[in-house]
Amino acid sequence: MKKAAVLISGGLDSTTLLHHVIKSLGYDEVYALSFDYGQKHSRELIVAKAQCDSLPEVKEHNVLDISYMGDFLGSSSALVKGGVEVPDLKDIAEGDLDQPVTYVPNRNMMLLSIAASFAESRDCRQLYYGAQAQDEYGYWDCTESFLARMNDVFSLNRRTGVHVEAPFVNMSKGHVAKIGLALGIDYAQTWTCYRGGDKPCEVCPSCVERALAFKECGIDDPLLKK
Amino acid sequence: MKKAAVLISGGLDSTTLLHHVIKSLGYDEVYALSFDYGQKHSRELIVAKAQCDSLPEVKEHNVLDISYMGDFLGSSSALVKGGVEVPDLKDIAEGDLDQPVTYVPNRNMMLLSIAASFAESRDCRQLYYGAQAQDEYGYWDCTESFLARMNDVFSLNRRTGVHVEAPFVNMSKGHVAKIGLALGIDYAQTWTCYRGGDKPCEVCPSCVERALAFKECGIDDPLLKK
Repeated sequence: MKKAAVLISGGLDSTTLLHHVIKSLGYDEVYALSFDYGQKHSRELIVAKAQCDSLPEVKEHNVLDISYMGDFLGSSSALVKGGVEVPDLKDIAEGDLDQPVTYVPNRNMMLLSIAASFAESRDCRQLYYGAQAQDEYGYWDCTESFLARMNDVFSLNRRTGVHVEAPFVNMSKGHVAKIGLALGIDYAQTWTCYRGGDKPCEVCPSCVERALAFKECGIDDPLLKK
Repeated sequence: MKKAAVLISGGLDSTTLLHHVIKSLGYDEVYALSFDYGQKHSRELIVAKAQCDSLPEVKEHNVLDISYMGDFLGSSSALVKGGVEVPDLKDIAEGDLDQPVTYVPNRNMMLLSIAASFAESRDCRQLYYGAQAQDEYGYWDCTESFLARMNDVFSLNRRTGVHVEAPFVNMSKGHVAKIGLALGIDYAQTWTCYRGGDKPCEVCPSCVERALAFKECGIDDPLLKK
């Protein structure tokens, strides 16, 4: 058996990653982990579960409630319920791109360190993470340097050192979508919109990037056709 | 105002640290953070609160419930309720000292990354952490290299980069206790025992180390005199 842990948010990138890890990289014992952090877009957890259920190689899908983050972060981030509004991409000023309001302080280190604990407890050395190139635009904790330095920390572990693998870190979202379409992924079972509505808003930064990714693949977003 | 965030578990080291940060380093706006991770020794949270309440410089004491850790870690660690028994120090084999059963996978990175998020959300650049030299014996994530590499990650933050400060990292527990006694700390209001009893068991690794620390200071443990 080839074991790995995979972080799956239910979005385009991490869903593609889950299928890629199993179908392209040949892992057949996969431990999937999602987070419920009081996000406005909790529908992503439902589709994450549906994706995991569809793959027999996924032995466990654990959804961790870390909504305490919302408690102590309060309204300081637009991603959490009760927080400020998510802006349209067109309304974000150039200068704010270094740290958008959707930024959650130190979010990715929190998520990755919990995920590494989960991976270690399941005796997995590999932890797959769906960071991709476009995420870099606004978040210091989505960069290659961030991941390299995180792995520098994990490498000190004296027994089961976990290594974070981010195979899409240099790819555009369009490139990731191309990989996923070739793997036969049903992207109607993914969720990307930062807002909490029934349908994608099509104007928030996530929606705009997602639409562009499918456009690069020459198709419409399968989620919008439903 | 001089702001800092401080991690306080309610044990000897972190309680000393809290007083040290305020009384010796001059911080007058302190945000304290404790974790409830389903530990067997939850009394430490009660004494942590008592210590915070006694210091007007502590503006907020936040206890975060991260007991989800117990859910997914199951019985793999002796520190969590329902987990295996905490052994007496004399029963721990030499060879097991590289990773004792009280080890929780990747615990300190989880705690520090959450604490860094808390510090960042309160606009604190300094996060104080009570690691001390003796902790090194069994945990890779208590070492100076571990802290240096964590700070390497935080230094990538583009706005409020948090720096973890561990002023006791090269001191013995006895040295730390000496500092605390000079600051007038009431060590009867601290808790160290790994087991869940009403009184310290006096034989678990934590109790033995604590007793030794007070012996170095020439006194009996104030907690045992109560």
